[in-house]
Amino acid sequence: ILLCTGGLGPTHDDITKGVLAELFCPEMRLDERVKSHITSIFSKRGFPLYPSNLAQAEIPKCFETLFNPHGTAPGMLLEKDGKFIVALPGVPYEMIYLLQNEVIPRLKAKADIGSRVVRYLKTAGEAESVLSEELIGDVSAFLQKGCELAFLPGPARVTLRITATQSIENRSEELSRMADDFEQSISERIPGLIYSSEKEETLEECIGKILKQKSLTICTAESCTGGGLINRLTDTPGSSAYVLNGYVTYSNDSKVRELGVDEQLLRQFGAVSKEVVLAMAEGAAKRSGADITLSISGVAGPGGGTKEKPVGLVWLGVKTPDECFALRLLLTQDRLINKERSIMIALETLRRTLLGVKRLPYGLEKQV
Amino acid sequence: ILLCTGGLGPTHDDITKGVLAELFCPEMRLDERVKSHITSIFSKRGFPLYPSNLAQAEIPKCFETLFNPHGTAPGMLLEKDGKFIVALPGVPYEMIYLLQNEVIPRLKAKADIGSRVVRYLKTAGEAESVLSEELIGDVSAFLQKGCELAFLPGPARVTLRITATQSIENRSEELSRMADDFEQSISERIPGLIYSSEKEETLEECIGKILKQKSLTICTAESCTGGGLINRLTDTPGSSAYVLNGYVTYSNDSKVRELGVDEQLLRQFGAVSKEVVLAMAEGAAKRSGADITLSISGVAGPGGGTKEKPVGLVWLGVKTPDECFALRLLLTQDRLINKERSIMIALETLRRTLLGVKRLPYGLEKQV
Repeated sequence: ILLCTGGLGPTHDDITKGVLAELFCPEMRLDERVKSHITSIFSKRGFPLYPSNLAQAEIPKCFETLFNPHGTAPGMLLEKDGKFIVALPGVPYEMIYLLQNEVIPRLKAKADIGSRVVRYLKTAGEAESVLSEELIGDVSAFLQKGCELAFLPGPARVTLRITATQSIENRSEELSRMADDFEQSISERIPGLIYSSEKEETLEECIGKILKQKSLTICTAESCTGGGLINRLTDTPGSSAYVLNGYVTYSNDSKVRELGVDEQLLRQFGAVSKEVVLAMAEGAAKRSGADITLSISGVAGPGGGTKEKPVGLVWLGVKTPDECFALRLLLTQDRLINKERSIMIALETLRRTLLGVKRLPYGLEKQV
Repeated sequence: ILLCTGGLGPTHDDITKGVLAELFCPEMRLDERVKSHITSIFSKRGFPLYPSNLAQAEIPKCFETLFNPHGTAPGMLLEKDGKFIVALPGVPYEMIYLLQNEVIPRLKAKADIGSRVVRYLKTAGEAESVLSEELIGDVSAFLQKGCELAFLPGPARVTLRITATQSIENRSEELSRMADDFEQSISERIPGLIYSSEKEETLEECIGKILKQKSLTICTAESCTGGGLINRLTDTPGSSAYVLNGYVTYSNDSKVRELGVDEQLLRQFGAVSKEVVLAMAEGAAKRSGADITLSISGVAGPGGGTKEKPVGLVWLGVKTPDECFALRLLLTQDRLINKERSIMIALETLRRTLLGVKRLPYGLEKQV
């Protein structure tokens, strides 16, 4: 299997197609579906259409077209003597789309790679070592032969991957049951901590489902995350059903003006404090009328740290119809990682709170 | 050169280090710097410290430590018989950091790969084919032998990469001059359209520099981008010097309440309209007192489209001390790509407006 990416665009340096044609079949055919797709993109956006753009609809005759709805460059695939030659556009999201939707299904249908069953258990807000040593503990008793467990960490998240593989001992019909059994053993050890068992499902999608199901609305009040939290919430299609609005109150003035935070609190405790993050949550809830409010204020860095309030200090505020509390985080020296972690921990704190999970992320304690 | 990623964590499935030790040098040494780094991370965050965590500070004796400030797993490198074996953590940002800061400099210092000079000219808001066919045009007259030009497209952006490579004709002392000459020829053809010639510099960083230099403040009023615009602006360290605040007015109610948009406008023209996006910009400017306001309202999709207002229709509003205008965009069917493109085009429109560049992104016309 040979996968090439890039070089399918309309400019002089895009030579992949020409090389493939030269190697395998010099004659080209015009793909009408791709041609009308390109024409419609250009007319919709009001761009001039050059011959170089239309030439993207030409495919070496022996190659199959892999239609690319996300761009003007189609992918192409040739199967020859049991081998596969695949050319994909280089723009990452176009490449990923075609790989997932066109290439992998075709390869799976043809290649004999043996069966396996893979499960993903997604968690957030727990350290990898705490999950494995303390919360889940020794799984060897449950780990049947041919079943494997991997810990895949990311910023403030760990995905557990279970793989059950066909072998002499394991017939392919048994793999699902093996994976089910193992998944259940793990779930029982960390009740409420798995936010999803769908590989592609995001934490914000899960929260959206919970909010919809409980008919709750949400609003955010952000300082150091600068809109990253509400940006994440609104990545989910249909989020307008529960996201009312967000306040990104970056300056102190705007915390007072938009959220009604008492100037006295800002002077006495500073913008990065339990008192201010609670006042931000209360103020946003009052003004927006939302059922749920999340607020965040912290020192994202790299500048602005002091001895008392170092870079990485972040306060989260959570207001629900039942309670209002704050959490204190001490994160890293990196600005973007601090934004990302704060957002994940805020979302996971909300998820656990809404579902009545006692343990908060990282075993943190509520402060009021 | 063998690069391995992953398998350096504290859990049972992390076996890379053990395998390397078995192959090259069974004895381990404790790296004190890594040990105290791990200890300090855990004590700062208040996590329990397990022996498995401290074991991450052990390195096979013949390997050099690649210190990882962003995580607990250090990288490691062995040079043997002119070959390099490198193990890096699998978490993407940790891997990238070590690759850029530790691995590549070491390899560059040792490997004899011939000289080349690479330049990046970053543009946004122009289609690849328009840039190459219409704006830049034929560069063959300027393209000296050994000098190459590549077009690297992304969502609403194209980076031009110039590479001057050492050869029989080109001595290494001449490469910089060749690249300079070529860069100048291109810049002259697209005056004002290159926002940066630093590979890693973002559009929002460039805007930050302009705003600081002109002592201007900014505020945002977003609907369909859901906070993605202000999130991007606040990714830049020190952005609190010019970002005042942002309104993410997702619901119609919040557009009225937070920005004072006239309900009559919303009823008559709908939330995705020139009239509303201009009113959002005016309202946000008035309320925040910012010098510059960007507003965005659109149909991000996948749902919510109509015949008159299809998925991908986005209105941008720009208010400066001198003018207030709107731009109409027709983007794609993909929600996240629509968010991303809207944000890039809004930022690039602002950049060109602040610098007095006549041409707007995609040759769009101002509407008032």
